[in-house]
Amino acid sequence: MDDRDILALGIDIGGTAVKAGLVRVTGEILADCQVQTPVDRPQEEALRTLGRALRDFVQGRRIGAVGVGCAGLVSRKAGIVHVSPNLPMWKETPLGPLLAKELDLPVFVLNDADAFALAEARAGAGRGSSPVVALTLGTGVGGAVVIDGRLSSGYHGFGGEMGHMSLAWDGPLCPCGNRGCLELFVGRQGLVSAYRAEGAWVPGGIAYDTLAGDAQGLDPRILAEAARRGDAVASAVFGRAGEILGAALANLSNLIDPALFVIGGGVAQAGELLFEPARRTLAARAMIGAAAVAPVVPAALGVRAGLLGAALHAFDGLTRGSSKTGDRG
Amino acid sequence: MDDRDILALGIDIGGTAVKAGLVRVTGEILADCQVQTPVDRPQEEALRTLGRALRDFVQGRRIGAVGVGCAGLVSRKAGIVHVSPNLPMWKETPLGPLLAKELDLPVFVLNDADAFALAEARAGAGRGSSPVVALTLGTGVGGAVVIDGRLSSGYHGFGGEMGHMSLAWDGPLCPCGNRGCLELFVGRQGLVSAYRAEGAWVPGGIAYDTLAGDAQGLDPRILAEAARRGDAVASAVFGRAGEILGAALANLSNLIDPALFVIGGGVAQAGELLFEPARRTLAARAMIGAAAVAPVVPAALGVRAGLLGAALHAFDGLTRGSSKTGDRG
Repeated sequence: MDDRDILALGIDIGGTAVKAGLVRVTGEILADCQVQTPVDRPQEEALRTLGRALRDFVQGRRIGAVGVGCAGLVSRKAGIVHVSPNLPMWKETPLGPLLAKELDLPVFVLNDADAFALAEARAGAGRGSSPVVALTLGTGVGGAVVIDGRLSSGYHGFGGEMGHMSLAWDGPLCPCGNRGCLELFVGRQGLVSAYRAEGAWVPGGIAYDTLAGDAQGLDPRILAEAARRGDAVASAVFGRAGEILGAALANLSNLIDPALFVIGGGVAQAGELLFEPARRTLAARAMIGAAAVAPVVPAALGVRAGLLGAALHAFDGLTRGSSKTGDRG
Repeated sequence: MDDRDILALGIDIGGTAVKAGLVRVTGEILADCQVQTPVDRPQEEALRTLGRALRDFVQGRRIGAVGVGCAGLVSRKAGIVHVSPNLPMWKETPLGPLLAKELDLPVFVLNDADAFALAEARAGAGRGSSPVVALTLGTGVGGAVVIDGRLSSGYHGFGGEMGHMSLAWDGPLCPCGNRGCLELFVGRQGLVSAYRAEGAWVPGGIAYDTLAGDAQGLDPRILAEAARRGDAVASAVFGRAGEILGAALANLSNLIDPALFVIGGGVAQAGELLFEPARRTLAARAMIGAAAVAPVVPAALGVRAGLLGAALHAFDGLTRGSSKTGDRG
């Protein structure tokens, strides 16, 4: 049995579902599964439940290590999730050590946007490019810089928070404590609020009628659909969000000078509604000029990017031999 | 004769003066000199004049390589200065190859802010810290990210342009093509304009009387002096610039998560007038929080940081053995 036969278990802890997959070192996903995120359970109980489901899933497989991507402030070295928007009951949770105990395997934890970026840079749209700047646009906006296949995320590993780049230093307050953050403009809530502020959420409006007036259902997917069906307000909302995204990409171009931008996440499903104004603004504003500026491409791996990136991070951890949370023999 | 006896010639091409120094691999500067920048001469004549002066300076010394820092858009690999604000007659100037011919030595070229950052990170205020984010605030605002002693400047080497980070996506147009750039707020011209816009440049005003009404002399140094002597408008101008600088540092904290910020350049001479509001704003806005945020410290090496960084870059080039412009045997 050679090294290629060792598998990593990649886990992506999302707000509603935990996705897990058995991954080869080549990036090939052999099998995957999905269980409900135990959002309303205390951390130890949640991890016991999760551990049981995962043990069933991997039964009989030769697993070398486990990688876990989780939203929030994550200390990679210690495997601690300090806070997570998806798991409000988790505070200073030693996710790595607890899960290592449940599974009796080395566990390597990272931020979910870092996992997304690692997967896209190494096995997805960014394959062969470096540096890759990857952004994921959803309820939150996150990302990472990947240089030569490695995350470049700073002293504590908290870098890459592109969603909290201020593009309006004296703009609206963001829950993060900053003002005028990118996430306020291109995150789910920002898009929905901008649409409603324009007065288009009324009977007869395309999005309103699609949802029969159920405001809870209004999200970027519905807005993109409305825009494609001729809703000028929805189009304008994506146009402005795309321009602000482009301004953020110009900042990133000037700071990082990437070879490629990869954009994923639910909001990116709006496609050219968002990408066209973003590319146009980037080309107009980046110092390097339109001819040399990095291409902006959609993410290629879909919803399994997170578990794949977590698995790649686990393989890296095994190679480094430096699991702080899993070297349990 | 061991390796420590080999010297590098470090050169910093500024807007008014070219500074050069003989530098040991330890960072020690053995001797330095200064000649006028030949700003009004065509590039080949300028480089012949410069070459003569430098040959006189280094006579009889054992030089291993030459490093040159120059403002503007610089391709490190090819040693080309595409454009430089300090040398308007230079366009697509093959500075590395031309100077290598003049001096018959390998020549390694880099952007002047990169040279500043490299010197401060390795031999100055940032020594022992990584990543270091270094900014230089002057007529222009530049900087670089240094990770483990190496410049992290992207695909073309054009990264680190912190002066052209937009903090106001729909703000005033910057000559670079972007809007609301940091440089517009904390660069020399921005500070002077903000002061004059407040109506304080009038007879009886502290700065006005200091300069006997000579508006040409109004610069950040005079403004800082006026502020210290009680000019409330000058203080407020630095206070606002410091807040915007702090917002930029918060963006950099969220993106890069450095261990340390180093701030140099003429405008930084304003000291706490600028640093206090910058640190306060950074602490309030950075996601990592006030307790863990990177310290903001003044640069330590003064005006010789540029030539020192250029020399360190030359030593690196020799070690890599990859001078594209100087491997001339």
